[in-house]
Amino acid sequence: MNKKAIVLLSGGLDSATTLYLAKARGFKCFCLTFDYGQRHRREIVSAKIIAKGAKSPYQVLKIKLPWKGSVLLDRKQKLPVSDCRLPVVIPSTYVPGRNIIFLSFALSCAEAVGAEAILIGANAIDFSGYPDCRPQFYRAFNRVVKTGTKAGAEKKAIKILTPLIRKNKAEIIRLGARLGVPFHLTWSCYQGGKLPCGKCDSCYFRAKGFKEANLRDTLLS
Amino acid sequence: MNKKAIVLLSGGLDSATTLYLAKARGFKCFCLTFDYGQRHRREIVSAKIIAKGAKSPYQVLKIKLPWKGSVLLDRKQKLPVSDCRLPVVIPSTYVPGRNIIFLSFALSCAEAVGAEAILIGANAIDFSGYPDCRPQFYRAFNRVVKTGTKAGAEKKAIKILTPLIRKNKAEIIRLGARLGVPFHLTWSCYQGGKLPCGKCDSCYFRAKGFKEANLRDTLLS
Repeated sequence: MNKKAIVLLSGGLDSATTLYLAKARGFKCFCLTFDYGQRHRREIVSAKIIAKGAKSPYQVLKIKLPWKGSVLLDRKQKLPVSDCRLPVVIPSTYVPGRNIIFLSFALSCAEAVGAEAILIGANAIDFSGYPDCRPQFYRAFNRVVKTGTKAGAEKKAIKILTPLIRKNKAEIIRLGARLGVPFHLTWSCYQGGKLPCGKCDSCYFRAKGFKEANLRDTLLS
Repeated sequence: MNKKAIVLLSGGLDSATTLYLAKARGFKCFCLTFDYGQRHRREIVSAKIIAKGAKSPYQVLKIKLPWKGSVLLDRKQKLPVSDCRLPVVIPSTYVPGRNIIFLSFALSCAEAVGAEAILIGANAIDFSGYPDCRPQFYRAFNRVVKTGTKAGAEKKAIKILTPLIRKNKAEIIRLGARLGVPFHLTWSCYQGGKLPCGKCDSCYFRAKGFKEANLRDTLLS
């Protein structure tokens, strides 16, 4: 139980499943959540509750992106409604450089605390087509870790692990269910509020996943 | 004059020279400076004055690294005194993930504002051995840009440019002098204060550079 890992925890079901998976693999987990100007705080609250429930220390990092470039950062713009299929173009909810920024902080933290892995619940199957969720990006980032850090220069490179990247949403949900992930505490919707909007891409993929997994979404009941 | 670039401006002579070089190459520059918990604010003040003097808009981004891992982030630790040679191990002034974090913000900004380049004054000749100043790291980061951004996915990848990376300090100073860089406004020392300490690695490389370039450091006179 001495291996340390940083887990990027957004409050959604993918990252919660990743945290539970990391714990099952014997990692002592430290969770990082970002308050980056997203439209609502509901997912940040979810992340804190999930980390506490998993008895993992966590830190919310506040970062300011003074530029926009995404509807998730700009409340004046309307969120797109899902057309119930895999996007063919990168949608307006893409946040420039988001996962790159998150990973760079996680990497700094991992080096400082001596963690050997960073886990992120990125997924390139049932996803919105974001480029920073694809395997080739994580391969490239692992090369950055090897070449651009002290750990890498000393041949102790920290690994970025993406255990969910090739699973579909139903497989992730089944895995999470086996691991005891408290799905009722997770939040996937791009909107805040009391209940998910049921209209955005993120709600669409979540509903599709639970249906295909033949499981009930406990958030909705 | 329509090409836009983001310039990472620390307030030191390398980044100031990079800004002047970018302007000479026809870029419309937007400067980013980071307030990341470094030991003093002198270099941030220098960066602002340099950007203003170059008539370039700038933004100071405040980021918090709640972990330490570097003497530059921890005032309780003593700064190492330079032993007047190229370091053989990575020194305690290394900040975990620093340039990776800076570049990730610059990348987000570049995508949001439609810049085609990010310039950083990294140097791998007269340097402290930091891994995130070496060419192989920038090659890897350019791969991250290609694979992990919308711009990259749309074949309009933003380029990370490191025009000083293979120059020695004297060459950088001669170039800066030709471009009219106001060296008296730059600040390289790891300490704050009225005058540079003259003892740290950064002071050592600066003094060596001016001596080899046969020029007077106007900051000292």
